[in-house]
Amino acid sequence: MAENNTITFYDLQLASGCTISPFVWATKYALKHKGFDLDIVPGGFTGIMERTGGKTERLPAIQDDGKWVLDSWLIAEYLDETYPDRPRLIGSEGEKILTQTLENWLWKTAIGPWMTCFIKSYRDRSLPQDHQYVTESRERMFGNTMENIIIGREDRLPLVPPQLELLRTALRQQKWFGGDTPNYADYRLLAVFLFCASVADTPVLTEDDPLRDWIDRGFDLYGGLGRHEGMSPLFGLKLREGDPEPFVKDAAKMGGGLVSRNTGPKSTSEETAHLKGEKTTA
Amino acid sequence: MAENNTITFYDLQLASGCTISPFVWATKYALKHKGFDLDIVPGGFTGIMERTGGKTERLPAIQDDGKWVLDSWLIAEYLDETYPDRPRLIGSEGEKILTQTLENWLWKTAIGPWMTCFIKSYRDRSLPQDHQYVTESRERMFGNTMENIIIGREDRLPLVPPQLELLRTALRQQKWFGGDTPNYADYRLLAVFLFCASVADTPVLTEDDPLRDWIDRGFDLYGGLGRHEGMSPLFGLKLREGDPEPFVKDAAKMGGGLVSRNTGPKSTSEETAHLKGEKTTA
Repeated sequence: MAENNTITFYDLQLASGCTISPFVWATKYALKHKGFDLDIVPGGFTGIMERTGGKTERLPAIQDDGKWVLDSWLIAEYLDETYPDRPRLIGSEGEKILTQTLENWLWKTAIGPWMTCFIKSYRDRSLPQDHQYVTESRERMFGNTMENIIIGREDRLPLVPPQLELLRTALRQQKWFGGDTPNYADYRLLAVFLFCASVADTPVLTEDDPLRDWIDRGFDLYGGLGRHEGMSPLFGLKLREGDPEPFVKDAAKMGGGLVSRNTGPKSTSEETAHLKGEKTTA
Repeated sequence: MAENNTITFYDLQLASGCTISPFVWATKYALKHKGFDLDIVPGGFTGIMERTGGKTERLPAIQDDGKWVLDSWLIAEYLDETYPDRPRLIGSEGEKILTQTLENWLWKTAIGPWMTCFIKSYRDRSLPQDHQYVTESRERMFGNTMENIIIGREDRLPLVPPQLELLRTALRQQKWFGGDTPNYADYRLLAVFLFCASVADTPVLTEDDPLRDWIDRGFDLYGGLGRHEGMSPLFGLKLREGDPEPFVKDAAKMGGGLVSRNTGPKSTSEETAHLKGEKTTA
C-alpha cells in the first residue's frame, strides 16, 4: 500500500491555496503524523463530486493506492489499522471518545463565536467559484446576511479567550494532549486554531496568551504545515476598557486536588495550613 | 500482592457512612473495576493522619499487602501497572490527559455551582467531629458564612443542567466514556454525581434528563456501589417559569460533521439539500 510512501489527499482550499475546513486540517496532520507524503488534489467547495468521481460530497477524502477512504475520523482509524507499525494517532477507544467530547466543547466555545466574526472574510477568501455557495449556505444556516452576522464582533471576540482556560490548564501539566508527543487529539484541537487563522481578518488571542506555545509548536510541526502564507496572525488581540481578563494570570494557585498529586503530608501541608487559616513558614 | 484479593481502603465518609469526596468515590470504583474486595477503614476528615499512621493528610489512600499508595490518580496508575492482567482503568496517556481535562470542565460546570447550593447540607451531614473543620475551612474558602453562601440557590440550580449537554452528546454515541464498558473516565465523571447525591438536599436534574441512563447504570455498578442509603435523589428538579430548557429535546438534529460520519453521498445528501435550500424527498 501507499506506493512511494504517498497518499492522495483531496484538499478543501481557499483562493490562497490554504486549507479551510478543520476536518481537512486534522486529516492533513494525521497523514503527516503517519509519515506519508501527500499528493494533493486542490480545489474548493465547488465540484467535489466531480473531482472524486462521485465518491463523496464532502472532504476530506484520501486515496491509498486506489482505495478510497472518506471522513476525517474514519481516515484516522483506517491509518492506525492499516499502518499499526507507524506512530499511533488514537491510543484507545476511550481516548477517541474523550477527544470527540473535548472537540465538541471547543467548537461551541470558540468556533461558534468566531464563525459569527469571520463568516464574511471566510466567503471573501474562498475561491471565486465558491462565493455564491458559501454565501447562500451560510446565510441560510444563520438566517441572516453576512454583513449582519458580523455586526458587534468587536464585543464578542474578547469574550472567547477567557473561555479557553481548560486548554491552558491541561497544557500547563504536559507538552501535548498526547503527552510527550502530539496525537490525534492535538490535531483535532489545533485544527480549530488552524481554521481560525485561515479566515480571521483580525487577531483572536492576546500576544501573551499561554496557549501560544502549544499553538506555535503545533503550527510548526512537519516543516511548518500550519504556516501557509494565506493564513493570518492569531495573536495580537487588543483589549478594551472593561473587557474580561483573557486568561488566569496567577495560574499556579489554581486546581487544588484536581491537578496536584498527594505524595504525603509534605505535599499538602501548605494547603492544609491555608484551609485552617494558619500561617505557613514557606 | 493483595492477599485474599483484598485491598485496604481508607474511606472519607459522612455521618451516614456514605462516601463524600469525588476523589475517594473514583478510587472506590477503580478498586472494584480491578476486581478487588475492599477492607474499608471508616472515618471522616478528622484524624486522617492518626488513622494512616502519619502517611497522609488527604484521602483516598490504600494499602496493598502493606504497601501504601496515596492520591486517586496515582492509585489508578498503580493498579494498572501492578495488575496489568485485570481490566485496564486508563487506556493510554492521552486518555488520562483528556479525562483530567474533561473532569476539570465538569468541576467548573457542575461542582462549582452545586457546592454553593449544598455546602450547608454537606456540613450538616458530615460526622459530628468534622462539623467545625468543614464549617471553618469552607467558610474561609468562600469568604462567607454557610447560610449566606447558599442564598439564591433556587435560581442557580436550574442553570446547571443545560450546561451538561456535552456529556449527553457523548453518551448518545456510546454507552460509556470507555466505549462498550466503563473505564476510569466514567468513574471520574460519575464521581461528580456521586458526590452530589451524597450532599444534595434537593434534586439537581429533571426526571427526564437523558443523562439519567448513564448515571443510573453507573450507580448500579458493582452491586449498587453508588446506592448507599445515605444518598439523596438527583432527579426531580422542578423547573419554574423562565428557567432555561434543561437539555436539547431534538438532539438528532445536532452535531453535523462533528458526530455524523461521511460514508458517501447518500450519508450527506439530506444535509446538502438543506444547505442549498432544496426540499428533500425523505
